[in-house]
Amino acid sequence: MSEFEKAVTGLGEECGVFGAYDVDGHDVAASVYYGLFALQHRGQESCGIAVTDTYGKRNVLSKKGLGHVDDVFDEEGLSELKGNLGVGHVRYSTAGATRVENAMPLVINYVKGTLAIAHNGNLVNAIELREELSQTGAIFQTTIDSEVIAYLIARERLHTPTAEEAVKRAMQKIKGAYALVVSSPRKMIGARDPFGLKPLCIGKRDNTYFLASESCAIAAVDGEFVRDVLPGEIVTITRKHGIQSDTSMVIDSEKQARCIFEYIYFARTDSTIDGVGVYHSRILAGKALAESYPVDADLVVGVPDSGLVAAKGYSEQSGIPYGMAFHKNSYVGRTFIKPKQSERVSSVKIKLNVIPEVVKGKRIVMVDDSIVRGTTCANIIKMLKKAGAKEVHVRISSPPFLHPCFFGTDVPSNEQLIAHTHTQEEIRQLIGADSLGYMEIEKLKDMVGDLKYCDACFTGKYPMEVPKEDISQAFEQN
Amino acid sequence: MSEFEKAVTGLGEECGVFGAYDVDGHDVAASVYYGLFALQHRGQESCGIAVTDTYGKRNVLSKKGLGHVDDVFDEEGLSELKGNLGVGHVRYSTAGATRVENAMPLVINYVKGTLAIAHNGNLVNAIELREELSQTGAIFQTTIDSEVIAYLIARERLHTPTAEEAVKRAMQKIKGAYALVVSSPRKMIGARDPFGLKPLCIGKRDNTYFLASESCAIAAVDGEFVRDVLPGEIVTITRKHGIQSDTSMVIDSEKQARCIFEYIYFARTDSTIDGVGVYHSRILAGKALAESYPVDADLVVGVPDSGLVAAKGYSEQSGIPYGMAFHKNSYVGRTFIKPKQSERVSSVKIKLNVIPEVVKGKRIVMVDDSIVRGTTCANIIKMLKKAGAKEVHVRISSPPFLHPCFFGTDVPSNEQLIAHTHTQEEIRQLIGADSLGYMEIEKLKDMVGDLKYCDACFTGKYPMEVPKEDISQAFEQN
Amino acid sequence: MSEFEKAVTGLGEECGVFGAYDVDGHDVAASVYYGLFALQHRGQESCGIAVTDTYGKRNVLSKKGLGHVDDVFDEEGLSELKGNLGVGHVRYSTAGATRVENAMPLVINYVKGTLAIAHNGNLVNAIELREELSQTGAIFQTTIDSEVIAYLIARERLHTPTAEEAVKRAMQKIKGAYALVVSSPRKMIGARDPFGLKPLCIGKRDNTYFLASESCAIAAVDGEFVRDVLPGEIVTITRKHGIQSDTSMVIDSEKQARCIFEYIYFARTDSTIDGVGVYHSRILAGKALAESYPVDADLVVGVPDSGLVAAKGYSEQSGIPYGMAFHKNSYVGRTFIKPKQSERVSSVKIKLNVIPEVVKGKRIVMVDDSIVRGTTCANIIKMLKKAGAKEVHVRISSPPFLHPCFFGTDVPSNEQLIAHTHTQEEIRQLIGADSLGYMEIEKLKDMVGDLKYCDACFTGKYPMEVPKEDISQAFEQN
Amino acid sequence: MSEFEKAVTGLGEECGVFGAYDVDGHDVAASVYYGLFALQHRGQESCGIAVTDTYGKRNVLSKKGLGHVDDVFDEEGLSELKGNLGVGHVRYSTAGATRVENAMPLVINYVKGTLAIAHNGNLVNAIELREELSQTGAIFQTTIDSEVIAYLIARERLHTPTAEEAVKRAMQKIKGAYALVVSSPRKMIGARDPFGLKPLCIGKRDNTYFLASESCAIAAVDGEFVRDVLPGEIVTITRKHGIQSDTSMVIDSEKQARCIFEYIYFARTDSTIDGVGVYHSRILAGKALAESYPVDADLVVGVPDSGLVAAKGYSEQSGIPYGMAFHKNSYVGRTFIKPKQSERVSSVKIKLNVIPEVVKGKRIVMVDDSIVRGTTCANIIKMLKKAGAKEVHVRISSPPFLHPCFFGTDVPSNEQLIAHTHTQEEIRQLIGADSLGYMEIEKLKDMVGDLKYCDACFTGKYPMEVPKEDISQAFEQN
Repeated sequence: MSEFEKAVTGLGEECGVFGAYDVDGHDVAASVYYGLFALQHRGQESCGIAVTDTYGKRNVLSKKGLGHVDDVFDEEGLSELKGNLGVGHVRYSTAGATRVENAMPLVINYVKGTLAIAHNGNLVNAIELREELSQTGAIFQTTIDSEVIAYLIARERLHTPTAEEAVKRAMQKIKGAYALVVSSPRKMIGARDPFGLKPLCIGKRDNTYFLASESCAIAAVDGEFVRDVLPGEIVTITRKHGIQSDTSMVIDSEKQARCIFEYIYFARTDSTIDGVGVYHSRILAGKALAESYPVDADLVVGVPDSGLVAAKGYSEQSGIPYGMAFHKNSYVGRTFIKPKQSERVSSVKIKLNVIPEVVKGKRIVMVDDSIVRGTTCANIIKMLKKAGAKEVHVRISSPPFLHPCFFGTDVPSNEQLIAHTHTQEEIRQLIGADSLGYMEIEKLKDMVGDLKYCDACFTGKYPMEVPKEDISQAFEQN
Repeated sequence: MSEFEKAVTGLGEECGVFGAYDVDGHDVAASVYYGLFALQHRGQESCGIAVTDTYGKRNVLSKKGLGHVDDVFDEEGLSELKGNLGVGHVRYSTAGATRVENAMPLVINYVKGTLAIAHNGNLVNAIELREELSQTGAIFQTTIDSEVIAYLIARERLHTPTAEEAVKRAMQKIKGAYALVVSSPRKMIGARDPFGLKPLCIGKRDNTYFLASESCAIAAVDGEFVRDVLPGEIVTITRKHGIQSDTSMVIDSEKQARCIFEYIYFARTDSTIDGVGVYHSRILAGKALAESYPVDADLVVGVPDSGLVAAKGYSEQSGIPYGMAFHKNSYVGRTFIKPKQSERVSSVKIKLNVIPEVVKGKRIVMVDDSIVRGTTCANIIKMLKKAGAKEVHVRISSPPFLHPCFFGTDVPSNEQLIAHTHTQEEIRQLIGADSLGYMEIEKLKDMVGDLKYCDACFTGKYPMEVPKEDISQAFEQN
Repeated sequence: MSEFEKAVTGLGEECGVFGAYDVDGHDVAASVYYGLFALQHRGQESCGIAVTDTYGKRNVLSKKGLGHVDDVFDEEGLSELKGNLGVGHVRYSTAGATRVENAMPLVINYVKGTLAIAHNGNLVNAIELREELSQTGAIFQTTIDSEVIAYLIARERLHTPTAEEAVKRAMQKIKGAYALVVSSPRKMIGARDPFGLKPLCIGKRDNTYFLASESCAIAAVDGEFVRDVLPGEIVTITRKHGIQSDTSMVIDSEKQARCIFEYIYFARTDSTIDGVGVYHSRILAGKALAESYPVDADLVVGVPDSGLVAAKGYSEQSGIPYGMAFHKNSYVGRTFIKPKQSERVSSVKIKLNVIPEVVKGKRIVMVDDSIVRGTTCANIIKMLKKAGAKEVHVRISSPPFLHPCFFGTDVPSNEQLIAHTHTQEEIRQLIGADSLGYMEIEKLKDMVGDLKYCDACFTGKYPMEVPKEDISQAFEQN
Repeated sequence: MSEFEKAVTGLGEECGVFGAYDVDGHDVAASVYYGLFALQHRGQESCGIAVTDTYGKRNVLSKKGLGHVDDVFDEEGLSELKGNLGVGHVRYSTAGATRVENAMPLVINYVKGTLAIAHNGNLVNAIELREELSQTGAIFQTTIDSEVIAYLIARERLHTPTAEEAVKRAMQKIKGAYALVVSSPRKMIGARDPFGLKPLCIGKRDNTYFLASESCAIAAVDGEFVRDVLPGEIVTITRKHGIQSDTSMVIDSEKQARCIFEYIYFARTDSTIDGVGVYHSRILAGKALAESYPVDADLVVGVPDSGLVAAKGYSEQSGIPYGMAFHKNSYVGRTFIKPKQSERVSSVKIKLNVIPEVVKGKRIVMVDDSIVRGTTCANIIKMLKKAGAKEVHVRISSPPFLHPCFFGTDVPSNEQLIAHTHTQEEIRQLIGADSLGYMEIEKLKDMVGDLKYCDACFTGKYPMEVPKEDISQAFEQN
């Protein structure tokens, strides 16, 4: 799937979280802004920042809105967010729930003061928990899982000595995927689900601590990467004690189940997750493809931007030269339209053009990260052939999607997935490729070394019990 | 106070509520839009509409935003609000709490489904109630009293047979001023505080029922005025039973305490509240002023728009001709600026100009509804004199503000009120009037016949126990 | 015609012009902004300001845009317009030509430097002049007459000693209606067509001179009214000589022909044009109506805002009390929509509501300035009767429109004018009035004393030769 | 110079032009929109489209605005541009002249009807021509050279039989750089200055002809590349005769002088200009750099996006592996801000991040297209070293800028250019590079084979007489 296809088909990232705590008391809104900006690829629907002044009234100031980080925040908006402890969020969501009420961080007042919570992931027992809470008088104003988590924390907090203890007790009730960043009045708490389905890491710059979905966001604020939060770990950051860790919920590493799609597609190439560089894992994916599906060809090219690194890996393994076959128009903005009168011109053409002198007369290996509906892929192959490519061999750096994800990855429904309705040979013919090879499921492990991962979207083997049907719309109000 | 002064000084309306229920199942969003539009004078900060389809899934669809009704809603936005039971709200608020999170209606999911609530007024025991709720695990996402009310309803609903019964039990706990419109999945419920501090009335058009803060909104949707909701009454409107009433919380009419400022200034001249026409009450105010402060003059003029009717009353009583002394620029929009280079020109001049031929050589009686800081009044008098008025006698159709309001009227703090810091004679001199007369407190009753009213902002006599200090900012987060 | 009908039917004002020259060198953009703001009623489509620093480089800085004055200009925009000689314009136009290219002032570079020109009115020989200019190599970038005038000035300037002389020679070639404000690098020049069809007056505040379409704009900038520019006069304002006058093109006052519609409807009630107060002339119109069409009634009411003054006049003449029957919603903004689902509610209802207690049981005389299509009038009468009015007698303060205007007033085409297609009695029945009276043509002269005026839209008697057909679209490009 | 530096330093592209003529009569606005979109890199300040219906009234409809193509045009705007002959323009300009009045295409009415003109380039004798035209009564409403050209065409057209002949006579008077696309009522005319400083090419799709600054725009509309317009050639496209050519102004190819910076930086890598592929020429530049400045290193990397291809060339020549060292954030939009509180974080960091695992421990050759002020380059080197690069050898694919460009390339003034004020060794130290090599002037010819080019910005040898000083601001009004 090229990134252009993504907008159409709805295979989407879930969310990104970021926290910053300057224990010396300086404002952190600008850092959170930069951090979210580096995580923008994880969610473009809405975003928000909530800050607390731990030296002052400890109220939370927040701003949220629909759109990209630089749509929602301007100089004035950021300067109003005075506070040295900040939590930020970028959100992706299916169209139905695009509403500002669901933007995060969620900011609540509860018995112990104010609390802001940012959450990446999906709970599988949210419905049961909502029902239970409602039975004791809870009211829900959003359709996001974070509200359930917030309620649980608030209730547990009534009879626990600390906020982090309340977070732990809440974690004992929720099931699913989550990376959490919470600002309790004077603490920043980070937590990751025991399976490690969603990433979370820690950074530091002078006396400012960071929590981020990906290490690239730590780099963006000029911070030093400290370490990943362990699956199941709760870290509590305070002025007095710095980083404290509670690992009582950490499970046997053999049972962990990181989302493999972070490495294949979601995460930025300049991030490192749980010790494995994303760039490196994609190089390895390309190499694995070259091993599984060698071909006699003249040039390996990647579909920008998500196929480029795997193409490099294929090239390195196969010895076939790596080339730049495409020019990507970097001015395609959010308001780009496809005028109705222009049925002749495909959308992909506007965004991507072949450099004819690179491909003319060549046998091409074209690498991309996935195929969803096949239309975009077919158009790109057509462009390559029109520009003179003699052959086009397609290599996909992930196996075919065949099962729904319950943990936050928005996989299109089956009828939209070409892999559901067609054999590999049929797909090859439909897209007009001379050959087609998908990443082999058993080779996914090559990408991440010893790490344990979740590949349920390819295999149907989920790391925990999941609902019988898709529950993503269960609480949608509009 | 002219309406121009209002923007500067912050003496504000509180809110307006509107509900529509088409029991035949047709969409009501357009009617709610019109209704809110007619109530725009009660709140310009934010607005919202929430609708339910009582024949369908009974989920609530809502849209809220900062700004005027016609800023927030467009054709597309309204057409998406499919539903035959709708609740709307226009909100005024002090600057500090201008945030979309606080916009109403509040929409919640609770044990019995979804519920939307619109509320006009202020509770005096909100802090205690929040504290109590927090102690049992409640979380608060807004700073509005409606969230407290929603929680109480949700908790009571756990062990009451009907939504209206839960509303009643919630009302037994809350103290203060309120007019409520609630959409429970298939009912529209209206309620008014036992003192009747805030107005609420019922209308009907064919098979559509309306609830509105003022009768002018019933007229705007081409409805027939049915009746006012009684102070303390709960009305429940259903498809099956039409309008049902619960008057068990109605108190002795002698103890009722309608906000007299609705008649003086808030309400539209074309509304009727509790049987008394607002236009009529202002005519009577003008007459009372003429009796208390007669003067030998040639012309009575009102400051547009709020002083016009009382000026007419003064004219009728005194026999002095009524005249139009001012042209008001109707193009002063929300984005109007006062450029910095223009210190010579007063803001009021841009919005209001004297018609010289009307006032030249005349002794003028100028009627307005209030004086807050005195600056605007002084500027208008200066303009009249420059245009040739020989004398300007100021008559104010309300007594001087001297006490804070705890029920939702945003009276400026004491130091901003000229009446606090100066004697009447000093004020007269400061504004440059030839004479000055304020409405006498004891004559307020002339305006509303037998109705009992609250005039605490003038007298300090509150109808219930009130907090020792201003609590309006207690739960503000930003 | 109520003002609400205007938006629908397109009977429009033409334009407003404003100039300010601070000979001491202070910036005038803020004054021009205020001046235009006071003239906003003359044109809401686009506006612009062009300023020159007569002490500096004498280049022209300008800003123009579609929309109201406060849409186009903000603090930053005004502060960038550094200069002590400024020209401003508000423009009305038919929909077809709504484009920013046609916004004024027109700013040109020509042989003698830069020049800005603002123009109110229509030329009747623009086509011939464009043709002549084109034959000698002229190119036209707009469809506005001002460009023709600018060319003529530029060409004449090649062989005249002064800019004002060039303006005069240009005036000898153009025919039609115009009020001009021109900033030549160090002069402000004002001119009015010899018939005086369009108004223009002079004001002063300290060392700042003003030129304005109406005196209300002089008042808005706190200036003193100096005098009207004479029909045919050219005034030149310089630092050295103050106001200089060239009256060589002034014609016999008996041949002058002011637009009577300025008094009836266009101009603001607080303006005075050629010595006749607009308020006063409307009072006289109301009195004339009362003489022509007396009726036994209880109350005289005006349709806001344009019918209010004539209603006052009718009341004064007839002795029938004047009343306020309507509340006008002052929040109807530019983005107000009429949702499609709301066929039951008329647009006029949203903007105007009857105050029932004022009209109930009364026989009403309702005064408005014109009837275009009749729909709005019919709706208002219906509202009055629904509110209990026993009779509604309609009095219109202008005669029926029967002829096109070639001088800049945008009269709807014949088929839209009810007076074209129906007799007076038919109209009365259609609108549901109990009686109907239009201003008598011969009584128009009562409104303006000895002034000579143009009433061609009522009589077909034009003060000059006019084209055979409507030429307003001749040069439209889009 | 990375592209990020460009925004700051103002080394800018000049403009892009595009024309489309569907001789069968179908609308072309969508094609022009796509064409401009592919040329967006040539100008981001303003854009416009003007269309004519050659079968209809032959008036020109146009829309222009400040901003990117997808800011200015939406579905509705495009659908209103009905016409089968269209001209489009994207404009770059220095800040001072950012105003919508200067947006192109320029649309004029002249003696023969309407004409739209789009122009890329700068005239060196514009001042003299304006002066001459003014002396015969011309007025100028913009500060763009296109208006001068339009005037000349209009004047010549008075006594020439055809529009293309008038274009030729105008070309005989103008001196400088230009690529023109003109729509005369029923012809599309393209012309290129005799030196060929600016590119222009012809394309075709079925019965639609295209003219475009670059071939990538032909590809974007799914057209076939036909050929380049020759330097000095005028092509006229009509329904009847297709493409007609007038080469009477073509000069000796030895005297031609294409802008070499088109190949180095301006043009898109997927374009071919005058037979030389831009990608290919950059590969050759990289190879030339490798020959001139070999170095013992482990990896060659390009600064995205403009340095990537030359880096590939360096790699191919040197045998040192090509690598991807940077992740570029593709969400940096037009509204991205650098908050004031964030002095710690450099802007470049937000947009570009190093992939640590790629560069760690490596000796890096870093290729970029130019160095302007040096700050960005220094920041990137710092990032590489922080990520573990052992050495960073900088190679720049153009010689140092030392002379102003009079033909439309916006080179920063001398004091901003680091090459002006520092020796190469000083620059190396300032940016922190281990070695530094600029493209050698004599090797530029390697990039373009036999083509003659202009390298005056490096050498000071201009292909024609140029003004003594920078004239770019001469006619600026604001």
